[in-house]
Amino acid sequence: MATDPNCIFCKIVAGTIPCFKLYEDAATLAFLDINPVNAGHALVIPKNHAPTLYESLDVDLAAVMSTARTVATAIEKTVKPAGLNLLQANGPGAAQSVFHFHMHIIPRVQGDDLKMNWGLKPGDTAALAALAEQIRANI
Amino acid sequence: MATDPNCIFCKIVAGTIPCFKLYEDAATLAFLDINPVNAGHALVIPKNHAPTLYESLDVDLAAVMSTARTVATAIEKTVKPAGLNLLQANGPGAAQSVFHFHMHIIPRVQGDDLKMNWGLKPGDTAALAALAEQIRANI
Repeated sequence: MATDPNCIFCKIVAGTIPCFKLYEDAATLAFLDINPVNAGHALVIPKNHAPTLYESLDVDLAAVMSTARTVATAIEKTVKPAGLNLLQANGPGAAQSVFHFHMHIIPRVQGDDLKMNWGLKPGDTAALAALAEQIRANI
Repeated sequence: MATDPNCIFCKIVAGTIPCFKLYEDAATLAFLDINPVNAGHALVIPKNHAPTLYESLDVDLAAVMSTARTVATAIEKTVKPAGLNLLQANGPGAAQSVFHFHMHIIPRVQGDDLKMNWGLKPGDTAALAALAEQIRANI
């Protein structure tokens, strides 16, 4: 499995940096974004390191999407959003900040008027922990 | 294969409605969005009908992502964008307008300030046809 010692998501996979974990299997990991644009904003990553879509393997993309459906279904049940987006960014012009492929799961609030490049505002740690527990219970 | 006789994307798959085709294989079809937010805006759909992510099969999601990488790579080479997003919408609150799972490929222009819910503005037909030919040549 490819890993990059300087990659923050590889460190989360290795367990040396903590996360608000939602789901894990052999190929993927899902956790809450610590800078949520809306409640329930989560990320799904392949454990195998690849910077962007362009270098990603079919097997990893397939695993990410299967996990994304599982986790999005639980988020939908927990947060009851007006809608939900999957969003994935490649390159600085798309506001990609961590160069390890990741699929955002973004629950939508009616009238939230979200932009594809959003500002990073840290979420409340206790609220994130409580929400992660609720979402895990719905998986 | 599931199909919905009232679905515009199923009609495109069947060939009864035309599209600016970029790529096709046994499980997927990719074509230019006729209301592009930026030049090169494309869609990848599974041929098998499912309204949203929630009802989609693993095998279809895997096929869509493999095609998305292939087509995004060709779009990147053709349009040379500042970045590129994959975006997928579920439900009216996420501005989903066609209820057949589709992954948007959105090339980004520096400073385009795109929203996740964008307005629909028809593209120029001749320009779309010419661009589709250029992208196909890069696949």
